[in-house]
Amino acid sequence: MAQTTPNHKLTVSGWAAHDSSGVVTPYTFKRRVNGADDVSIKILYCGICHTDIHHVKNDWGITMYPVVPGHEITGVVTEVGSNVKGFKIGERVGVGCLAASCLNCDSCKGSEENYCDKVQFTYNGIFWDGSITYGGYSEMLVADHRYVVHVPESLPMDAAAPLLCAGITVYSPMIDNNLHETPGKKIGIVGLGGLGHVAIKFGKAFGHHVTVISTSPSKEKEARERLGADDFIVSTDPQQMQSKMRTLDFILDTVAATHSIGPILELLKVKGTLVLVGAPDKPLDLPSFPLIFGKRVVKGSIIGGMKETQEMMDFCGKHNITCEIETVTPDRINEGLTRLANNDVKYRFVIDMAGKNSCL
Amino acid sequence: MAQTTPNHKLTVSGWAAHDSSGVVTPYTFKRRVNGADDVSIKILYCGICHTDIHHVKNDWGITMYPVVPGHEITGVVTEVGSNVKGFKIGERVGVGCLAASCLNCDSCKGSEENYCDKVQFTYNGIFWDGSITYGGYSEMLVADHRYVVHVPESLPMDAAAPLLCAGITVYSPMIDNNLHETPGKKIGIVGLGGLGHVAIKFGKAFGHHVTVISTSPSKEKEARERLGADDFIVSTDPQQMQSKMRTLDFILDTVAATHSIGPILELLKVKGTLVLVGAPDKPLDLPSFPLIFGKRVVKGSIIGGMKETQEMMDFCGKHNITCEIETVTPDRINEGLTRLANNDVKYRFVIDMAGKNSCL
Repeated sequence: MAQTTPNHKLTVSGWAAHDSSGVVTPYTFKRRVNGADDVSIKILYCGICHTDIHHVKNDWGITMYPVVPGHEITGVVTEVGSNVKGFKIGERVGVGCLAASCLNCDSCKGSEENYCDKVQFTYNGIFWDGSITYGGYSEMLVADHRYVVHVPESLPMDAAAPLLCAGITVYSPMIDNNLHETPGKKIGIVGLGGLGHVAIKFGKAFGHHVTVISTSPSKEKEARERLGADDFIVSTDPQQMQSKMRTLDFILDTVAATHSIGPILELLKVKGTLVLVGAPDKPLDLPSFPLIFGKRVVKGSIIGGMKETQEMMDFCGKHNITCEIETVTPDRINEGLTRLANNDVKYRFVIDMAGKNSCL
Repeated sequence: MAQTTPNHKLTVSGWAAHDSSGVVTPYTFKRRVNGADDVSIKILYCGICHTDIHHVKNDWGITMYPVVPGHEITGVVTEVGSNVKGFKIGERVGVGCLAASCLNCDSCKGSEENYCDKVQFTYNGIFWDGSITYGGYSEMLVADHRYVVHVPESLPMDAAAPLLCAGITVYSPMIDNNLHETPGKKIGIVGLGGLGHVAIKFGKAFGHHVTVISTSPSKEKEARERLGADDFIVSTDPQQMQSKMRTLDFILDTVAATHSIGPILELLKVKGTLVLVGAPDKPLDLPSFPLIFGKRVVKGSIIGGMKETQEMMDFCGKHNITCEIETVTPDRINEGLTRLANNDVKYRFVIDMAGKNSCL
C-alpha cells in the first residue's frame, strides 16, 4: 500500500502530549497527502476518551511521544482518493479507533478488523507506510476509506462523535450477545460514565430492563430520570448487592479502574454473561467460586468492526441515540482530561475542533 | 421429604477429619436408614479428590467438623427404597458430589442439579432432613436414588470411581462447548493431574488435537506416550508460550492453585474459550488486555448434572476411558492426602474401602 501514501507533505495543526505529565500543547505535524484509498476529513468534533488519558500519561507503557490523541472523530469529507467509492466531498463522516488492519485474515474478512492481530489504531499506531498515526485532536485527518463511516443526517455531529468509540464499544457486545433480538431481558450496566450512559440507551432501545450498578448513590436520580434506567444498585452496599443476587441475564462492565468482578458476577443468573469492555492497567480479581458455581461467563470485547460501526451509526440515527456531552474548545482540552480523570463530566467531553478559540 | 428419612439409626465406620490439621482418623457415625427414595450402597472404592484436602484443612472456611470426605464413590446396591425405580440390589453404582437439590428450579428441571442454588453435597452438606452429610471414606452410603448412576459392566470399579468427580468435571464443559460434535479442534488442557489426565482422554476420544500446558517439563514424555497428548507446552517457558499464541480453539484449566490466566488466554485464537474448573481459594489474576483484544471467553463450570453424569459413565464404558489410579488401603488415606497435596500421584488415589486392611 506504500504507493498510495508516498508523502507526508501536509502541515497540520493539532494538540499533542510530549511526555507523561498528562498535558497536551499545540503541535504542528505532517500527515500524508490524500492517497488513492484515502479520504481527507475536515475535523469538526473529537470526543475525549478515557483511553486518551492512558496514552497521554503512558499508563500502558506503549505511548510513542509526541502523541496526538483522539479517536471519536466527526467531520466533513474534503478530498476523495481515486479508488474510493461510497464517499463524496462534503459528506458527513466519522472515524473511530481503527486506522489499518491486514485485510486478509479471518477477522478482517468477517469485518471484525478490530480483532486483526495486525490492527493499527487512529493514534499511536503504525500505518502501512511506517508512519506513526496521529489522532483527532487536530484540524484534519487523512484516513483509509475502509475505516470511515457515514454519520446519519439526523444526528448532530458533536453528540455523535463519541459513538465512534464509546458507542460501538458497548453496542458490539450487546449485538454479539443477541440483545437486539431478545427483548425483555434483565441487563446490568456497571459504571455510569462515557460508555455506561450510552449502554443504557441501547439497552432501552433494545427493549430490556436496565439496571445501573455504580459506586455512586448520587447518580441514581439522573440514571433513572434522564437516562431511563429501570433500577440502580449501589455496588458498595452489601445488602443491596445481596438482595439482587442471581437476578440479571447479562452485565456490561464499563469500568476502567481495577476492581473485583466477583461480587458483580453474583448478580448474574446461572449461565449469565458479563462482558468486560474496560481496560484497567492492572489485572482484575476473578474469584473462581461465583464463576464455577453459577456456570457464568466472562467475555472481553473491544470496540467493533467497521460494518458493525456503520450499523450502529444507522441504528442511532433511527432511534435518535446520541451521547450526553459537554463541548469544550481546544484550549480547554487539558481541563477536560483532568475532569474526565476525576469522573467529573456528564458524560463525555467533545472538543469543538473547528469552532471559535480552536487555535488551529 | 422428612418422612422418608426419619431415623439416623445405622452405625457406620469411616474416616473423618476433626480439625484443620489435615489428618483423618477412624470415625464411627450414624446414617439414616434407607428411605423410600433411597438406595443403600456398600462402598467398594472412593477416590481422593483435591476438594477433600480443601475440606479437611478448612481452606475455604466452610468445613463442619467432623468431616467424612469422599465424593468419588463406586459400590454395590444393598437396599432399595419403595419409590425407587431403575436400581436393583447387587447392581454396580456410583455416587459423585451431589446429595440433594431442590428438584423444582430451572436448573433441577433441566438436570443441571449442580447449579441449583439449594444444592447439597455428598459430604459437608445439609440433607433435606437437616442432617450433615458424610461422604465416601466409609463402608456404606445411603443416597437418594436421584443422585446415583449406573457403572457400566466394562469399567473396573476402582478406576471408574474418580470419574464421578474428576471425570464429569472435565466432561461437562467439553460437551457444553460442543467438543463432542466438532472433531479436529485444537484444545489445551492446563494442569496434568487427576482432572487433566482424564481430560486428555476425552479430548482424544472426541477427535481433537490435544495440547497439555504444564509447569512441569518432566511430565511431557508421559503425557504424550501414556496419555496420548499431541503437544506439550511448558507454561513457565516464555518462548514456548509466545510461539503458541493464538493457536488453540479451547482450553480447559484444571489447576487448583491460584495463577494468572492472562498468559494462558494468549494461547487462544480470537473468540476462543477457556473454561475454569479448578477452585483456587484466592482470586485469579485476570488481565483485561488478552481478554478484550482477543474477544476471548472465560467460563466457569462445576461437575455436571445427573443425566450428563450417566451419559459420561456410558461414554467411558463404550470408549474404555478410566482414570489412571494408585490404590491405597484406608489406613493410608493420610499418606494419599499428603502426596496429593504435593502433586505426587499418577494421577488419582483411590481408596480400596472394602479390601484387606480396611479397618472398617
